Amino acid sequence: MTWPEIKESISKGDGIILPIGAIEQHGYHLPLMTDTYIPTMLATEIAADTDMLVAPPIAYGLSSRPLSGGGQTFIGTTSISGEVFMRQVEEILREFMRHGFKKILLFNWHSENMNFVYEAAFKATDLGTNKNVKIMVMEAPFGTLSEETMHYLYGDDFPGWNLEHAAILETSIMLYLRKDLVLVDKIIDDSPPEVPWYDIVPIPDKIVSKSGCLWKATQASEEKGRYIWDELKKILTETVNKEFKGSE
Amino acid sequence: MTWPEIKESISKGDGIILPIGAIEQHGYHLPLMTDTYIPTMLATEIAADTDMLVAPPIAYGLSSRPLSGGGQTFIGTTSISGEVFMRQVEEILREFMRHGFKKILLFNWHSENMNFVYEAAFKATDLGTNKNVKIMVMEAPFGTLSEETMHYLYGDDFPGWNLEHAAILETSIMLYLRKDLVLVDKIIDDSPPEVPWYDIVPIPDKIVSKSGCLWKATQASEEKGRYIWDELKKILTETVNKEFKGSE
Amino acid sequence: MTWPEIKESISKGDGIILPIGAIEQHGYHLPLMTDTYIPTMLATEIAADTDMLVAPPIAYGLSSRPLSGGGQTFIGTTSISGEVFMRQVEEILREFMRHGFKKILLFNWHSENMNFVYEAAFKATDLGTNKNVKIMVMEAPFGTLSEETMHYLYGDDFPGWNLEHAAILETSIMLYLRKDLVLVDKIIDDSPPEVPWYDIVPIPDKIVSKSGCLWKATQASEEKGRYIWDELKKILTETVNKEFKGSE
Amino acid sequence: MTWPEIKESISKGDGIILPIGAIEQHGYHLPLMTDTYIPTMLATEIAADTDMLVAPPIAYGLSSRPLSGGGQTFIGTTSISGEVFMRQVEEILREFMRHGFKKILLFNWHSENMNFVYEAAFKATDLGTNKNVKIMVMEAPFGTLSEETMHYLYGDDFPGWNLEHAAILETSIMLYLRKDLVLVDKIIDDSPPEVPWYDIVPIPDKIVSKSGCLWKATQASEEKGRYIWDELKKILTETVNKEFKGSE
Amino acid sequence: MTWPEIKESISKGDGIILPIGAIEQHGYHLPLMTDTYIPTMLATEIAADTDMLVAPPIAYGLSSRPLSGGGQTFIGTTSISGEVFMRQVEEILREFMRHGFKKILLFNWHSENMNFVYEAAFKATDLGTNKNVKIMVMEAPFGTLSEETMHYLYGDDFPGWNLEHAAILETSIMLYLRKDLVLVDKIIDDSPPEVPWYDIVPIPDKIVSKSGCLWKATQASEEKGRYIWDELKKILTETVNKEFKGSE
Amino acid sequence: MTWPEIKESISKGDGIILPIGAIEQHGYHLPLMTDTYIPTMLATEIAADTDMLVAPPIAYGLSSRPLSGGGQTFIGTTSISGEVFMRQVEEILREFMRHGFKKILLFNWHSENMNFVYEAAFKATDLGTNKNVKIMVMEAPFGTLSEETMHYLYGDDFPGWNLEHAAILETSIMLYLRKDLVLVDKIIDDSPPEVPWYDIVPIPDKIVSKSGCLWKATQASEEKGRYIWDELKKILTETVNKEFKGSE
Repeated sequence: MTWPEIKESISKGDGIILPIGAIEQHGYHLPLMTDTYIPTMLATEIAADTDMLVAPPIAYGLSSRPLSGGGQTFIGTTSISGEVFMRQVEEILREFMRHGFKKILLFNWHSENMNFVYEAAFKATDLGTNKNVKIMVMEAPFGTLSEETMHYLYGDDFPGWNLEHAAILETSIMLYLRKDLVLVDKIIDDSPPEVPWYDIVPIPDKIVSKSGCLWKATQASEEKGRYIWDELKKILTETVNKEFKGSE
Repeated sequence: MTWPEIKESISKGDGIILPIGAIEQHGYHLPLMTDTYIPTMLATEIAADTDMLVAPPIAYGLSSRPLSGGGQTFIGTTSISGEVFMRQVEEILREFMRHGFKKILLFNWHSENMNFVYEAAFKATDLGTNKNVKIMVMEAPFGTLSEETMHYLYGDDFPGWNLEHAAILETSIMLYLRKDLVLVDKIIDDSPPEVPWYDIVPIPDKIVSKSGCLWKATQASEEKGRYIWDELKKILTETVNKEFKGSE
Repeated sequence: MTWPEIKESISKGDGIILPIGAIEQHGYHLPLMTDTYIPTMLATEIAADTDMLVAPPIAYGLSSRPLSGGGQTFIGTTSISGEVFMRQVEEILREFMRHGFKKILLFNWHSENMNFVYEAAFKATDLGTNKNVKIMVMEAPFGTLSEETMHYLYGDDFPGWNLEHAAILETSIMLYLRKDLVLVDKIIDDSPPEVPWYDIVPIPDKIVSKSGCLWKATQASEEKGRYIWDELKKILTETVNKEFKGSE
Repeated sequence: MTWPEIKESISKGDGIILPIGAIEQHGYHLPLMTDTYIPTMLATEIAADTDMLVAPPIAYGLSSRPLSGGGQTFIGTTSISGEVFMRQVEEILREFMRHGFKKILLFNWHSENMNFVYEAAFKATDLGTNKNVKIMVMEAPFGTLSEETMHYLYGDDFPGWNLEHAAILETSIMLYLRKDLVLVDKIIDDSPPEVPWYDIVPIPDKIVSKSGCLWKATQASEEKGRYIWDELKKILTETVNKEFKGSE
Repeated sequence: MTWPEIKESISKGDGIILPIGAIEQHGYHLPLMTDTYIPTMLATEIAADTDMLVAPPIAYGLSSRPLSGGGQTFIGTTSISGEVFMRQVEEILREFMRHGFKKILLFNWHSENMNFVYEAAFKATDLGTNKNVKIMVMEAPFGTLSEETMHYLYGDDFPGWNLEHAAILETSIMLYLRKDLVLVDKIIDDSPPEVPWYDIVPIPDKIVSKSGCLWKATQASEEKGRYIWDELKKILTETVNKEFKGSE
Repeated sequence: MTWPEIKESISKGDGIILPIGAIEQHGYHLPLMTDTYIPTMLATEIAADTDMLVAPPIAYGLSSRPLSGGGQTFIGTTSISGEVFMRQVEEILREFMRHGFKKILLFNWHSENMNFVYEAAFKATDLGTNKNVKIMVMEAPFGTLSEETMHYLYGDDFPGWNLEHAAILETSIMLYLRKDLVLVDKIIDDSPPEVPWYDIVPIPDKIVSKSGCLWKATQASEEKGRYIWDELKKILTETVNKEFKGSE
């Protein structure tokens, strides 16, 4: 879009979505940019129905943790510090506010970014004192899925969202969206040797999955991808409209 | 302790626990220092059985979020930025490493600190390349409770850990540990008007509980406190010994 | 690409290109992402012939200056601070070095990023003392064009590279690459009322072009775009191969 | 205290004291937390008579210097950088101001923190332009003692305040307050081999006292501790009331 | 000047010049402080005719680059990071604004500082929103020379401004201003073995001139120095008066 | 000096002095640069006899405090933050170490810089672990004066070093060194209305001297200046030689 188009769009009351992800290993079969690609595509698909624009995504996110992303020891995983990540998001938010946006959606897909995204939003509003904007902070959209969907995806075998990395959900979505980017014959089931409820630094081998896949990717399917994709779009569209149409 | 005592302790292979909390409103009935007091006491109680020392706690933590701590608009909640928090934890870790500690436990009780504590540990080990230390990062100890305990505490009505703020668990523990600090006649059940799966900045009233208590504090009891306290001590002692005795 | 593919590629000696641009107004007719799109496409096109991979681009760059980009007062121009920009580039470079890349090309298209890109590279190599990598820093590729090409593009009327913003070169390239993104009927000639040899802060109107275009965009053509594109690809391929094949 | 109690207290015009110290070796006989314990206890004791609350102390302070604290080479001394220290104090001050406090006392006991505490206060008031608060900055309370007291403590043999580290004053106070924390049979007289009027980095042995005690700790006594404690309380109470009652 | 004199001067509407340079090798024959000395002297000479005061210069600038300053590997070249440089300039600008200055000239002579000086000015005005001051940012004054002068200095052999380091222009000026500081018998012609249009990090020998001089210093003369000095003074005086007298 | 001269000097074992001061009001009669001018001149005068070079001074220092420098509310006093000050000194020290200097003297004349200068030196040596250099940190040279000199200067009326600002010592030195820069007829005696042993932020009028002079400047004389100057040179020369000749 050109700048006069943005200006026009803002004057009509449109908002903007900032997709936030990571460049992180996703097992033997998914591309490094999975965490950035998915939220950017979701944002793009719901944009028209929610009167939101989509900004270029934040592609570089926080360091990967072994029990939710395989850990930072994988080659290819390319991360930045929390300090720089937060400042960048804060500065971009301040730019959106300067442009005149009153409705901003931070849509994050990389769980290691949690709390950092919120802090950036909190600081961008001068610690919550600038009431001239409304920022939705979606750091973990998964909890929104219906029980029905959860059962369809996982049966009785849901491992918790942390281990859902390069596994059923993400593999299904990527099969549905971009089968050309998935190395289908490399899909395997895997998991870390140990999954403690705490973390360890420096990263010991015993909590690192060899492939980087943390769960049963073989149970993924294009059909599951289509199903979950439609549900995610529906939920997001409804949620964004609920918050932002009400705020006009 | 004096410095020669510390030196002697390290030479015997002892480790150190850094309790991490917050100064955050805890409803009408609990003191602001609840999130710092509990992990410090837990650390102190397990210290002897795990051959760990206890460092002075990090009392000032991240800004409170409405759906896990009432939010930063309460008077009394006193928070620092994520940037300063992380740097402080990192610098203290580097001091522990200079002293010669090989076993460090970061024991956090304030969920908003999650990911920030990990990042600090990751950076203190030069992005995980310094293998001369082992840091356990406990950012959320609650998930360790047995199903039996969960049922005893919550029946079938567990609201999720986020809403467990100034509610059954924390109130029970404080009743057990320091009844003198609890305003027993101020204990109520409360919750935010709305509990969305995302967050909103600046903080709107609709997601803020009036009292700051996020769940059914009236179901707390000294007896429940004793029960959970004993279980937490047992689990922590076992876990710390498992990781750190094995590492000698 | 998946992480094993990256690893394999590095073990064969491949390098990596980091395209660097900006989100900046480009007149009435070009999209905001022009400065990011062009270097990313160029990097992609020369990748195969130079044995280089292409990393996700740095889309958010330094604040726009009136005499080279229209200035930071335009709606839509979305910039970050030099401090955050530099740190991000430095941290990404350190990640590339951790992966094992020995050949890195920083390919920048936004002149306001100059010196900041270099500083990031300088710091990433520990002030030039880490000799284990070779980083090419291309902050301004334009000076490489042949006299013939310059004459073809500008005749005797070259305004200097600073004013070549949303003008003949960029418009021609975008017409050639993505005519669908160009608002052809909005193309005009424009320039700031005054073009002093110094700059002024805060930005006064007299040095800001009304449209954001700084020169004669009407002289752009798809044909010129193809011509310059081919020349840029050729020069870059030769240059990168000269530096990086020689360094093996 | 609970948050409604804080709120009520502020509405009555109460102020708040932030005790600031260090975790620093204090010879063979005093605990590492001496510099934090003393100002926290003093603050607590004068709180009621001055209508001040007491915040959790800043326990981690600046690096120890050889000629005022033994130096940073001792095991156990746990320090943070000046940058992080200042930012933390500044952020906490801003929180106090958000709560509505108009009277704040920064009460520091660690001489290496001097000028850093002041700078934090200066920045927290937007370089002194925010007149909506009054911050007393006590970086070195010792100079307030009467000549009589000085003579009682030191006779004609006062070494200057810098060397008064783990020596007569601090040992006396700790004997009076917490004899249980003092290793009485480890009390010795000591001092650095050389005491130049300048400092040297990295720290050479010749300016480091072997025990970490910098002067004649054997001249300390519980009685001296009681005497000085009473005088400090009296002086502080009078001084705080003079500044803060007058400001109402 | 004393502070009452400054105050009086500001009340009359005077402005202030901040000279900005570097401590950087300048070949075998010129002093390290050349880049700081020249702009400070120029500022001093035009001060009276432009009603400007002159502040103490910023002597430490950005790291030297091989193709414009010989590079950071020379002994004697003493540089600071871009981050610290920018913050210092920003903070000094804010002090000038606090004093009441409405007219500020940043006069830079070290090309590596370009864009950093601008960013500092941009941030000091709260990203250009503080309109209560006018800051002229002169990052590269050379482009102002008349064609006549250029021909007198270089004939048909102008190498571009980057290579004009310790060469004809600077040597001539120093010969004219301070012949006592020039090692006349060390003046040589030199240049880097290669002069690519891009840069390389870490710095390879092939782009570093052995002497640090980047061009034909032997063509310098005191007479040329006087000529260029008079022209620079004239241009600067006219330009500053044009911008700042018009703004009253 | 040229870079080959610096290199030669270092190879002979010479050290370097970094003078550190401030731009700070000095009453009605002394120039703002007094705190920078004096240590720079002292450094220059002792350089030859101590085999030390002199680097360009740090002219911009910490904010002025009312009871040692009049306070930051005076027009003309131009200060930077402690953070930027420390980083700049640290970076310059690291440059000196890169050049090969083994002997560095930080010579500070502005008491507000105390502890900040030390911290910078401590960090530059990697928290004291880099033993490849010896840095003398002189933050307050006054305590070195003989009793005889003190009596000659002050009689029995010494107010403490803090109030010795623009008073007897500094005025005498400036009268001796640069009478042309002293407004002799503006010399007065002055002092703040109140001189508490603590500080107050924001700065209240009651602790600010009207003139900025903090003590009896009228008792200064050129003769006293000569006397103190000779003593300072003698002490510094002896001290520097004692530390640095012994270290060879």
